[in-house]
Amino acid sequence: MNDKNIRLTLSYDGSQYHGWQRQKNAVTIQGVIEERLQLMTGEPVKLIASGRTDAGVHAVNQVCNFITRSRISPGAIKRGLNSLLPDDIFVREAEYVAIRFHARYDARSKTYEYRILNREDPDIFLRNYSWHIRTPLDTKEIARCLDLLLGRHDFSSFRSSGSGNTSSLRSVLGAELYGKEGEGMMRLVIEADGFLRHMVRNIVGTLADVGLRKMTPGRFEEIFESKDRRLAGVKAPAQGLFLMKVLY
Amino acid sequence: MNDKNIRLTLSYDGSQYHGWQRQKNAVTIQGVIEERLQLMTGEPVKLIASGRTDAGVHAVNQVCNFITRSRISPGAIKRGLNSLLPDDIFVREAEYVAIRFHARYDARSKTYEYRILNREDPDIFLRNYSWHIRTPLDTKEIARCLDLLLGRHDFSSFRSSGSGNTSSLRSVLGAELYGKEGEGMMRLVIEADGFLRHMVRNIVGTLADVGLRKMTPGRFEEIFESKDRRLAGVKAPAQGLFLMKVLY
Repeated sequence: MNDKNIRLTLSYDGSQYHGWQRQKNAVTIQGVIEERLQLMTGEPVKLIASGRTDAGVHAVNQVCNFITRSRISPGAIKRGLNSLLPDDIFVREAEYVAIRFHARYDARSKTYEYRILNREDPDIFLRNYSWHIRTPLDTKEIARCLDLLLGRHDFSSFRSSGSGNTSSLRSVLGAELYGKEGEGMMRLVIEADGFLRHMVRNIVGTLADVGLRKMTPGRFEEIFESKDRRLAGVKAPAQGLFLMKVLY
Repeated sequence: MNDKNIRLTLSYDGSQYHGWQRQKNAVTIQGVIEERLQLMTGEPVKLIASGRTDAGVHAVNQVCNFITRSRISPGAIKRGLNSLLPDDIFVREAEYVAIRFHARYDARSKTYEYRILNREDPDIFLRNYSWHIRTPLDTKEIARCLDLLLGRHDFSSFRSSGSGNTSSLRSVLGAELYGKEGEGMMRLVIEADGFLRHMVRNIVGTLADVGLRKMTPGRFEEIFESKDRRLAGVKAPAQGLFLMKVLY
């Protein structure tokens, strides 16, 4: 009985996966990594991630951990996994952490980035890594809405169903838009103590309506306060979303 | 008999294709576009490109032309093709050109860019768009070799076999390295009046040996002058290569 807790920091391209969470009949990131870890350690492994990501969503830095009896060093886990994993998943770091560390419960904040390619022509090299919107977005109007998100709020309006009955209160610690009209790539960066199901994509879809002047910032505020998901805009597509950072 | 000549400027991601040139039992870029053009014009179409690109090689701006009796305007050709083509091929421009314009014979120069990700860790998002070399490359040594390439030379040392018996003389008009050690992405930009089969990839593979200090610039010069392909380095992988520009 000499259990160790190993934390992994991962990058992955979500394009070819049915999301993070293990599923019986679909290739998922968790499933692929657990399989390789089982090969290396000779025991079943259960990965705990900071949170799930949906099909098509990417991670620059996802954090997860697993308990193992294996004596393989974190350095050898990193090298071994990287030689066994497909080339769209990469282990950036592996390290021992306290046995009580839990990648989901202990996360203090997560930062997501959503990339919008805002120009007439698509960029074929970014088709899996951005949402292409042809019409110029009004970034000032979007920025006004972002300010409303800051602080502790009920985000029910931007929560997709099927996510249980837990609280919809979340604290948004930062919400910034980078990039200007005509520059092409816009990046919307949101940091919060936690995220509801599809929260970033529902917010971005509604913000896009504001940027396209289909909706005023006033109406955005009304929808936010209504706590009624049916009023918000469409869900932005998965391929623009990146999990950038998890803080503990 | 009212033939028109239409020139297309294309971007494509070569990852999923067996190169430019039409083949019977493989999906190629030429094949896919000709098929869609035939659907639109109702007649068989033969595309003439500035040159072939190999499997996995990309184009930011490839130029091709075709003769047609169709009255569909270039603007409608562009819109129609872009709605019919898969999302890894994009028509940037379509325009009428003089009936005698020939995308291959009339090209005055072509510019290729080769991208090397030079850092310890790979970038999974660039795996199909760069050559990952972990060891720091000596960029000064590489730059000395690039100067040797400038001007009119016999490039037999960097020509792959299977390319016929035509002349190996080509004029290199520019050869520059962008990016520094430790910055990650390096871009090698070469402009010439024409390129032999695999010429850029054979040059880059040999330059990588110089950058890794497995070969001196003096030895590079000897190999260049030997006109013996067997002496040069390995061929750099396809996924780092981009056709950037064709001048007429």
